[in-house]
Amino acid sequence: MASTSSLTLSQALLARAVSHHATEHFRDSRLSPVSLPTFSGLKSITYTATRATTATNCRRVSSRQVRAAAVETLDATTDTSLVEKSINTIRFLAIDAVEKANSGHPGLPMGCAPMGHILYDEVMRYNPKNPYWFNRDRFVLSAGHGCMLQYALLHLAGYDSVKEEDLKSFRQWESRTPGHPENFETPGVEVTTGPLGQGIANAVGLALAEKHLAARYNKPDSEIVDHYTYVILGDGCQMEGISNEACSLASHWGLGKLIAFYDDNHISIDGDTEIAFTEDVDKRFEGLGWHVIWVKNGNTGYDEIRAAIKEAKAVKDKPTLIKVTTTIGYGSPNKSNSYSVHGSALGAKEVDATRQNLGWPYEPFHVPDDVKQHWSRHTPAGATFEAEWNAKFAEYEKKYSEEAAELKSIINGVLPAGWEKALPTYTPESPADATRNLSQQNLNALAKVLPGLLGGSADLASSNMTLLKMFGDFQKDTPEERNVRFGVREHGMGAICNGIALHSPGLIPYCATFFVFTDYMRAAIRISALSEAGVIYVMTHDSIGLGEDGPTHQPIEHLASFRAMPNILMLRPADGNETAGAYKGGYIISDNSSSNKPDVILIGTGSELEIAAKAAEELRKEGKAMPTRKVVLPAAVEARVSIEAGSTFGWEKIVGDKGKAIGIDRFGASAPAGKIYKEFGITAEAVIAAAKEVS
Amino acid sequence: MASTSSLTLSQALLARAVSHHATEHFRDSRLSPVSLPTFSGLKSITYTATRATTATNCRRVSSRQVRAAAVETLDATTDTSLVEKSINTIRFLAIDAVEKANSGHPGLPMGCAPMGHILYDEVMRYNPKNPYWFNRDRFVLSAGHGCMLQYALLHLAGYDSVKEEDLKSFRQWESRTPGHPENFETPGVEVTTGPLGQGIANAVGLALAEKHLAARYNKPDSEIVDHYTYVILGDGCQMEGISNEACSLASHWGLGKLIAFYDDNHISIDGDTEIAFTEDVDKRFEGLGWHVIWVKNGNTGYDEIRAAIKEAKAVKDKPTLIKVTTTIGYGSPNKSNSYSVHGSALGAKEVDATRQNLGWPYEPFHVPDDVKQHWSRHTPAGATFEAEWNAKFAEYEKKYSEEAAELKSIINGVLPAGWEKALPTYTPESPADATRNLSQQNLNALAKVLPGLLGGSADLASSNMTLLKMFGDFQKDTPEERNVRFGVREHGMGAICNGIALHSPGLIPYCATFFVFTDYMRAAIRISALSEAGVIYVMTHDSIGLGEDGPTHQPIEHLASFRAMPNILMLRPADGNETAGAYKGGYIISDNSSSNKPDVILIGTGSELEIAAKAAEELRKEGKAMPTRKVVLPAAVEARVSIEAGSTFGWEKIVGDKGKAIGIDRFGASAPAGKIYKEFGITAEAVIAAAKEVS
Repeated sequence: MASTSSLTLSQALLARAVSHHATEHFRDSRLSPVSLPTFSGLKSITYTATRATTATNCRRVSSRQVRAAAVETLDATTDTSLVEKSINTIRFLAIDAVEKANSGHPGLPMGCAPMGHILYDEVMRYNPKNPYWFNRDRFVLSAGHGCMLQYALLHLAGYDSVKEEDLKSFRQWESRTPGHPENFETPGVEVTTGPLGQGIANAVGLALAEKHLAARYNKPDSEIVDHYTYVILGDGCQMEGISNEACSLASHWGLGKLIAFYDDNHISIDGDTEIAFTEDVDKRFEGLGWHVIWVKNGNTGYDEIRAAIKEAKAVKDKPTLIKVTTTIGYGSPNKSNSYSVHGSALGAKEVDATRQNLGWPYEPFHVPDDVKQHWSRHTPAGATFEAEWNAKFAEYEKKYSEEAAELKSIINGVLPAGWEKALPTYTPESPADATRNLSQQNLNALAKVLPGLLGGSADLASSNMTLLKMFGDFQKDTPEERNVRFGVREHGMGAICNGIALHSPGLIPYCATFFVFTDYMRAAIRISALSEAGVIYVMTHDSIGLGEDGPTHQPIEHLASFRAMPNILMLRPADGNETAGAYKGGYIISDNSSSNKPDVILIGTGSELEIAAKAAEELRKEGKAMPTRKVVLPAAVEARVSIEAGSTFGWEKIVGDKGKAIGIDRFGASAPAGKIYKEFGITAEAVIAAAKEVS
Repeated sequence: MASTSSLTLSQALLARAVSHHATEHFRDSRLSPVSLPTFSGLKSITYTATRATTATNCRRVSSRQVRAAAVETLDATTDTSLVEKSINTIRFLAIDAVEKANSGHPGLPMGCAPMGHILYDEVMRYNPKNPYWFNRDRFVLSAGHGCMLQYALLHLAGYDSVKEEDLKSFRQWESRTPGHPENFETPGVEVTTGPLGQGIANAVGLALAEKHLAARYNKPDSEIVDHYTYVILGDGCQMEGISNEACSLASHWGLGKLIAFYDDNHISIDGDTEIAFTEDVDKRFEGLGWHVIWVKNGNTGYDEIRAAIKEAKAVKDKPTLIKVTTTIGYGSPNKSNSYSVHGSALGAKEVDATRQNLGWPYEPFHVPDDVKQHWSRHTPAGATFEAEWNAKFAEYEKKYSEEAAELKSIINGVLPAGWEKALPTYTPESPADATRNLSQQNLNALAKVLPGLLGGSADLASSNMTLLKMFGDFQKDTPEERNVRFGVREHGMGAICNGIALHSPGLIPYCATFFVFTDYMRAAIRISALSEAGVIYVMTHDSIGLGEDGPTHQPIEHLASFRAMPNILMLRPADGNETAGAYKGGYIISDNSSSNKPDVILIGTGSELEIAAKAAEELRKEGKAMPTRKVVLPAAVEARVSIEAGSTFGWEKIVGDKGKAIGIDRFGASAPAGKIYKEFGITAEAVIAAAKEVS
């Protein structure tokens, strides 16, 4: 769909998420030329390795011991009755928290407690006292509404972010347990989910990051990067197109360490999935190239779940979907297997009935001692994992100092000193060029100095100009490369990049498409902004300048729509230095006014800056004093004209009551770009006329 | 994900596309209380049926006659050499138009010309002189960039919208042949495509409309609604998640008369599909529940294509995907089967080489006489189709006058006189209620008087309050019903509704989700706006009022983002009468100012109107004169305060330099709604303070 604009300036636009808690987080300044504090990982650990053994020795041993030999577990011989007790603890923590908040989603945690227990208690490697330990297994709850499952698991596992009081303040003002999982509120939560389908795509990004870093940094004698990515997704996630996009890529890339649990409970908000979702999901996933396993009894078939995970781990060249058939609200005698248990509190009466039914004599929020004792081993075990890994890394560093330094910067997010000097500079003598070409020069310059920069386009690499010339394609068999080919999957691309960004502070993913197609990925961009995932969006072909492709391809309202979105830094550069220095903010490009009182202020962005400059030249010939653009608009100068080939919505704030905003408040048209600019009045003549009118 | 707001007002928001050529089209006033002109169909036809026969008798007959007995054709015995000549005509019209424009996409038309020819020349039933004839087969080019294929076909078939001069002004200012197909520019183009994946979803909507109307109006003795929907989609459409969403629904609904041609050419913009698209599409579609056929030779296997269509028509309970393996740019010796032929002109040299290669001695834009002659029969044949159908309808009308009147109103888009009187009215004594509930009362009232009203929600019917109580669910075996269950597929839903709306002027689809999830479907909403598809979007839970679900579910920037979009009428009603009368525009809700000079103007929308009203009450006690909202803001009153629980972006235009906009310019939070309103300062106190500050 690419077409070359007849205008040389503009058409590259960069946006990225910035922190909305600037003082608390470091991410927002990641690309600014200041040094950054160390974030996580690689710090010394005070826990001793021996405590892990001590803790497991304390467990009760009963005749009902089941050896879960099927899986690599921390604890392969847990008493089944204790497993059940732990699972019911998870269920009731969810039930009680939702009940107290009188708001929330108990159904999923009740149904998914068994797989949740097995993952966090038997399978996953993590350090609860350092949620950011680099080599941890990642877990994503794509069905984010069921977040009480994850909060209960983090609580049992010993994460400081979810104490009993946090469970009791579920969904309350300033609590660490919001209504959907938010990575920036709750350490231990990897990504922000809730909008369905995002999480599975984030998980694809996390698994991509692992495969990429493993390929770059692992050595025959040291597997320094080595973790799994687990995700639970529900029927809702499965219906969303974004999940199909991301899952198609996951198998294309051979992400064998991605293991997805599909909570197949046959219930969505409107009732049985029979009313809208009757496709054969297994077959679709086989078509997508996944390994598919069906656990028929997800409610009590613990060994089935364990065996499935073992099988999934054995399949190394494909991601695995484990379809786990569960009962939503399992244990609730009157509400299970119905939509009524999905999204609201059970109510006191049904809570009692459920306590009876599952034989749960405890007070709300109670964790039985043996369950508590059982889970307590994860604190020392996690410390051991991290300590062992740190020791391994120290060895690695001795042998492979260069790789270790790079990996460290990816882990810590500390950019190499002076990285910004790598950016090209331009002079007035530099040949004029489209900013998308200038953007490519900048990306290529940055790729040399930023080891964590990787990314690509949604099948428009040659139009968006996003190829890194010194690298090949990240593919199944070349995962060490840094050009990612997303195909025509904008939404999946954005969400995958969110996963990459949130994998490690020093990974800086970029992604690209035509600006108009941000409409396809807006939900993912919003999550970038909200979750402070520092994704760089390279959006080209940003207005009617693309000409002949016509209104379906001409973004008119998009600049305004992103200016209204919190937490996004959006820049529309007009030339090489603006592209390179996009992170410096606005500045004066020309000014012949000798005082602080110019006659009129002209404001332009991107392509239209050139038009504004031409108009200024004409007006100066007639004796007007004016800058073309300024950081600060002096209040005294009410004569202001802005020009931008997009919606004038929002420009009133800048131009004020007395000023005039020139823009486009209709859809575009198919014709050569110059013709459309002229017909739509995006011209120097229009600026001159407006300037005379207002000054 | 539903949660009930503690505030009783608001949370329903209605948006719909309006015409951007208000004087030329009638759609924008469809829901306004005025009578509407007749649009299409049911008008008298002057062509005679006999000419069809005459035309076919003129054909050349050669020894290479192939009987395409496989399909119902207009002309089952066309000489293969003439078929090939016709196909090459299509190819060269595309090549020549792109060459002249020096812009466009020749690759797809060259590869898809065979299926295009067979569809338009042998299979489809249409009337070129009345592109709006109701019972026509619908064709959608989902891979819209290949629009020269469709323009060439419309030209050969005799549509007045695409004359030779239109082909010659391809992609030029004000031409009828824009760079992507636009239904509002080119009669014969059903829907606006280009953004990939939209068209296949539109086609699902068109096929849904046919199945629905057939179920309601067909009689054992009269199949008055009976047409197919054909669509061509490419690899790009296949990769987009929206196509998976829509195709999952297509089989769920058993849309047997939907036949999709998948142009399997292995090339996308970035190169071979091997780099990003290696899934097994056939298997995925089988998983989705489609009948799948593979035509291995789409370049010259005309009989294979014909046989596939026959087979597809025989499968009545499922949609069919015909995977047609083609060569992009077929015929170009040096550029075929490469991305270089996808999106730019071949260049004079390669055009010459292609002419040589395909044995095409003609001048640019030439249609050989025998090809012209061959296609000329479609004008009389189309007239015959329509005349026969009109006669059938006349019979139908005699027997089934009530049904005929309803169907006529659906066909013509003429709403029953006085339909708006069915809307409920509310008095100050009416109990306060959430506008989503009021919206449901309105929808149910309208469904009684508007036979074309149908729709539903993306799995949030009970939260969006969109069920029509007197109807059941539109399903495979109950297609006559009017509640559509879209599942969690917002993007597919929007695009399917676009297809329904554009099927017949009197079909009025509505669709619903939480307002924040418009991010998932924004690309489809934009097409509603651009293509004047009068879809009603019922968007509930429109700000922080949804409380505990938190920032992932709280739309902050969305009101502003749609206010910047052209051609969308967005209304945020605050009570029953605003909901019912949403189409009337703004009005004064209370005014104690006796002159035209109030002290301060308070402006609120939706939920916040109540807050503004409370503040006004307080301020009046202190002696201030003010209205709470007004249609026209007197310029003399610069003391203006707006309050809306969303981005303040754009409000400066309303409140002006001296006024103050109260809103939310950060993401939301998870907590009870009242708490968030208070913490965010969306309160009467804040309005009072601001009013005092500015006045």
